[in-house]
Amino acid sequence: MESRTEISSLGEFGLIQRINKGVTNTQPDTVTGIGDDAAVMDIGEEYGLLTTDLLLEGVHFDLTFFPLKHLGYKSIAASVSDIAAMNGYPRQVTVNIAISNRFSVEAIDEFYAGVRTACKDFSVDLVGGDTSSSRSGLLISVSVFGKVKKDKVVYRNTAKPNDLLCVTGDLGGAYLGLQLLEREKQVFLTNPDMQPELEGKDYVIQRQLRPEARMDVIYELEEAGVTPTSMIDVSDGLASDLLHICAQSGVGAVVFEERLPIDEQTYLAATELNLSPITAALNGGEDYELLFTVSQADYEKIKNNPKITFVGYIADKSEGVSLHTKGDSRVPMTAQGWT
Amino acid sequence: MESRTEISSLGEFGLIQRINKGVTNTQPDTVTGIGDDAAVMDIGEEYGLLTTDLLLEGVHFDLTFFPLKHLGYKSIAASVSDIAAMNGYPRQVTVNIAISNRFSVEAIDEFYAGVRTACKDFSVDLVGGDTSSSRSGLLISVSVFGKVKKDKVVYRNTAKPNDLLCVTGDLGGAYLGLQLLEREKQVFLTNPDMQPELEGKDYVIQRQLRPEARMDVIYELEEAGVTPTSMIDVSDGLASDLLHICAQSGVGAVVFEERLPIDEQTYLAATELNLSPITAALNGGEDYELLFTVSQADYEKIKNNPKITFVGYIADKSEGVSLHTKGDSRVPMTAQGWT
Repeated sequence: MESRTEISSLGEFGLIQRINKGVTNTQPDTVTGIGDDAAVMDIGEEYGLLTTDLLLEGVHFDLTFFPLKHLGYKSIAASVSDIAAMNGYPRQVTVNIAISNRFSVEAIDEFYAGVRTACKDFSVDLVGGDTSSSRSGLLISVSVFGKVKKDKVVYRNTAKPNDLLCVTGDLGGAYLGLQLLEREKQVFLTNPDMQPELEGKDYVIQRQLRPEARMDVIYELEEAGVTPTSMIDVSDGLASDLLHICAQSGVGAVVFEERLPIDEQTYLAATELNLSPITAALNGGEDYELLFTVSQADYEKIKNNPKITFVGYIADKSEGVSLHTKGDSRVPMTAQGWT
Repeated sequence: MESRTEISSLGEFGLIQRINKGVTNTQPDTVTGIGDDAAVMDIGEEYGLLTTDLLLEGVHFDLTFFPLKHLGYKSIAASVSDIAAMNGYPRQVTVNIAISNRFSVEAIDEFYAGVRTACKDFSVDLVGGDTSSSRSGLLISVSVFGKVKKDKVVYRNTAKPNDLLCVTGDLGGAYLGLQLLEREKQVFLTNPDMQPELEGKDYVIQRQLRPEARMDVIYELEEAGVTPTSMIDVSDGLASDLLHICAQSGVGAVVFEERLPIDEQTYLAATELNLSPITAALNGGEDYELLFTVSQADYEKIKNNPKITFVGYIADKSEGVSLHTKGDSRVPMTAQGWT
């Protein structure tokens, strides 16, 4: 009898590890394959970058509260964010969609209006894509090609002890925005006459529905003459993504709780929903901010950039990865959130 | 009230046209966007090529008779074929998959074994991919990055009157292989004790289950010093794909029925299934052969290549696109098949 191992017994990371274990790169122009935000390819004078993402209705988004125009925008922004995390510039994108007959032509128009706005905002061209019918809702697959100068590419596995740990923007908002939207959906399902209570919550809602890729910071770092020593985008939450940097770089890290950038609306939403804003910041995900390290020598060059917060530092591997709490204790950082 | 237009009222090509109409390329390094087998990007000394395809269970493949290893292979081959159609060389691929819990880890291993074999055969590296859970079967999205010398890239829209029309391999087999597999599936569903009657049909079955991208011919054309004047891969059937070349080049064409390369097994399967082998060759699809045009001056250089058949010629636009039948009449070529 053939043996059958359930995928659930491995988990998503386990499955990915199993797939990757069988892969060996043999082509001379493959610089880095699986394992970073984007693949790196030698294309001549520069490096080419390639990243791809899958978004499925019912798994990654809920169309009962996700406007299609925003979904189109977010599909592009999320993948552009992976190019940003390599310190690169997105150049071209492809978008595959599969749609069921539940969708009208006008709905598809809305989706592509969002795609086109994102293309304009991030200076990329939509150069291809496949369309198909689907038997179960909307399905999106985006690939982005980007470029980076060979001496400017930034990986996850090159953080060094004593480097400073930086994060852009603020954290936890996208997760709390999602929780608010889910709550309003339940209220609406119970009583369709209820008006949504989202006043004063526009910022966290927007963090969920229309995130930005931080290309602005990539441009500003270049202007400041700073090349991060390592970088990743915060798509799974700061904790999970910092653990990737530390594991792949063979280092530890300390994050100061009091330094975590959290917006006022995120605090308010967390209070209203009886959730911890710190946990949202550490494990929430989908913020699409950049988490990066710089050598101490570069501190002066970016210390006044209001988009960048210094949240901690890289330590020796033996020190582990920990959160230095407001109460001056240290707790190990874990990737488990409540998602 | 908002207006609602059904997608079915546009059809797939209509929808694609509507999507594409809104797209304008503005980036200086985008050479060609939507509208050819792959996008063409200026990457420095060479051109980069990017193509992407979607494959959905229940739409593009039926796992009751499609072995996962073959499906992995075909997923790569079909996209590599698009790079070949630009006269380019595939370099790196990404594979996104979404899977339901119906699939075991061993099943996923099989799929990736096929992916890896194809990567080896076509000299590409698997450099990335996204995995997700799915609520409805298996879903695959493949992107391929390739390269081509700037003076060697071949488009669809550059065929010239009096060019010779060539096709690689033979046609119609993949479609008839599918029909045979569908028939056996029905037989099996009616009586699970019946053994499949596929003896002597291995070639057409293989054409459906394990197609090749014709990179071999791309290498041979280069060796022969021949650059086609236009090219497309035969994924929708010779008729449909020739109509693309003719419409985009602003030319007509004549195809000689008696020159169509059709394998003996394809004839036999067509007879058995009471289908026309000519229709299968013209409208069957999924053969992944190359349809290309060369200037008459290049005829001598490739006339002895057994993989290439001269099936007709390019004519003035006013002559239209037609099939010259064995009975010496001319009938307009149409893209309608029975798929």
